[in-house]
Amino acid sequence: MPSLPDIMTPNAAELAKQDGGAGGHAPAPDADQDALVEFLLRMGDNALILGHRNSEWCGHGPQLEEDIAVSNIALDLIGQAAMWLELAGAVEGQGRSADDLAYLRDVWDFRNVKLVERPNGDFGATLMRQFLFDAFHFHQLRGLVASSDARVSEIAAKALKEVSYHLERSAGQVIALGDGTGESRGRMQAALEDQWSYALELFASDGTDRNMAEAGIAPDPAELRGLWDETVGAVMAEATLEIPDSDFAHQGGKQGTHTEHLGYILAEMQFLQRAYPGAEW
Amino acid sequence: MPSLPDIMTPNAAELAKQDGGAGGHAPAPDADQDALVEFLLRMGDNALILGHRNSEWCGHGPQLEEDIAVSNIALDLIGQAAMWLELAGAVEGQGRSADDLAYLRDVWDFRNVKLVERPNGDFGATLMRQFLFDAFHFHQLRGLVASSDARVSEIAAKALKEVSYHLERSAGQVIALGDGTGESRGRMQAALEDQWSYALELFASDGTDRNMAEAGIAPDPAELRGLWDETVGAVMAEATLEIPDSDFAHQGGKQGTHTEHLGYILAEMQFLQRAYPGAEW
Repeated sequence: MPSLPDIMTPNAAELAKQDGGAGGHAPAPDADQDALVEFLLRMGDNALILGHRNSEWCGHGPQLEEDIAVSNIALDLIGQAAMWLELAGAVEGQGRSADDLAYLRDVWDFRNVKLVERPNGDFGATLMRQFLFDAFHFHQLRGLVASSDARVSEIAAKALKEVSYHLERSAGQVIALGDGTGESRGRMQAALEDQWSYALELFASDGTDRNMAEAGIAPDPAELRGLWDETVGAVMAEATLEIPDSDFAHQGGKQGTHTEHLGYILAEMQFLQRAYPGAEW
Repeated sequence: MPSLPDIMTPNAAELAKQDGGAGGHAPAPDADQDALVEFLLRMGDNALILGHRNSEWCGHGPQLEEDIAVSNIALDLIGQAAMWLELAGAVEGQGRSADDLAYLRDVWDFRNVKLVERPNGDFGATLMRQFLFDAFHFHQLRGLVASSDARVSEIAAKALKEVSYHLERSAGQVIALGDGTGESRGRMQAALEDQWSYALELFASDGTDRNMAEAGIAPDPAELRGLWDETVGAVMAEATLEIPDSDFAHQGGKQGTHTEHLGYILAEMQFLQRAYPGAEW
């Protein structure tokens, strides 16, 4: 794994630690609670749906080690989703649990970016998506650790420890496969081009994002673009991959307009809870 | 379309007509009603699941004409499933409608053969499966038209008109693609070999089948093998395809032991009814 000074785990752990003692202060008084729910759903749904996509590789990875890694990342993300969605339900105040939000909403109520719901493609494409998301997720969580809302800050600190590792791993894999054989390089370049315009939805700020930024709850995603470009640029350079020369961004996932793929994900993901309502472990 | 004297539509229409006036007589007195329900579920589930698989091609067929054809066959089969399942629910006498049986049972209660739940593969593989099933279905329905149970006979007569056309079409396509290019022939031969052992489950008789045969309700599937071999043999000869030299038969689907694929089918197929219980058009 080549050096990526800006994204090493120790920094993240340090940042997480700094926040550790800050818990307990009240939510910023001017935070719009509806916007906060919306924001928390976006956090939870990105993690939930990407976690589900990764879980589809369980038992199908190209190597045992990779199979375990991708399954563990799935578990991390689903665990993070549970925290974000639990908080979303609490702020919403209508008695909905994390399970209710994960398993009983339909497509139009999901707030994840389209990037994470797209089919996995080959293992390289899955890794490329993971890297593009991780690079955003990492910088986003670093901002969220400093959130004015202690509950948000606390979840972000926990998630950041995991996501620092996700990014380290996916960056290393993108470099290994990009700067690999002709075949692997070609696939990674195709995956990058295929997913680029979907990745850019991550930076499409709207009223909810601006509300969160003004309340000091979350960084405006548009303002994370510079950090993301640095991280992505450094990795792609080492991977000998060319960043697409386009700023066209797919949009709408964050507001609930999804590709057809999300419906199929929910059909599988929600089957148990819908067929056996209220079932528990 | 080459001549296949045994399976022309006019014969089927004739047979269907002969039965037309025979309705109304009571079910055979010695028919085991539990076995009859089981038999009707097998009829309904084969049609339902194969219909669903065909419906997956809707909008994805290789040509507009083929897309419409495969979608129409899906509709025919789902319509037949509705008739068989409605009767199954009536005989069962527990107030379950065709919709209840289609959309609210879980995997282990389905009674279709494994052949129909397997993934579609390419369009040629879908056609090959359709042909192998149609050839059985056609001869089975011809037997069912003479059922001692007028309700069964009536549904079979309706279905036979449709299935005669299904068989004519799938036989013609298998011949066109088998006796086609090297590429198409290779794919059709591979599809035949891949599906052969699954198709043979159609002839695996059990106690339910013997009970139905003894009551004059349905032909014993094992006894349809000769007719099927003739139909399949004639078509494969014209298609220049080699029939696999194996009598190994997958089993268990008819008794409710399925491949992993059925669960994914049900997740998608049942989503609407499970997410919105009691929803109607």
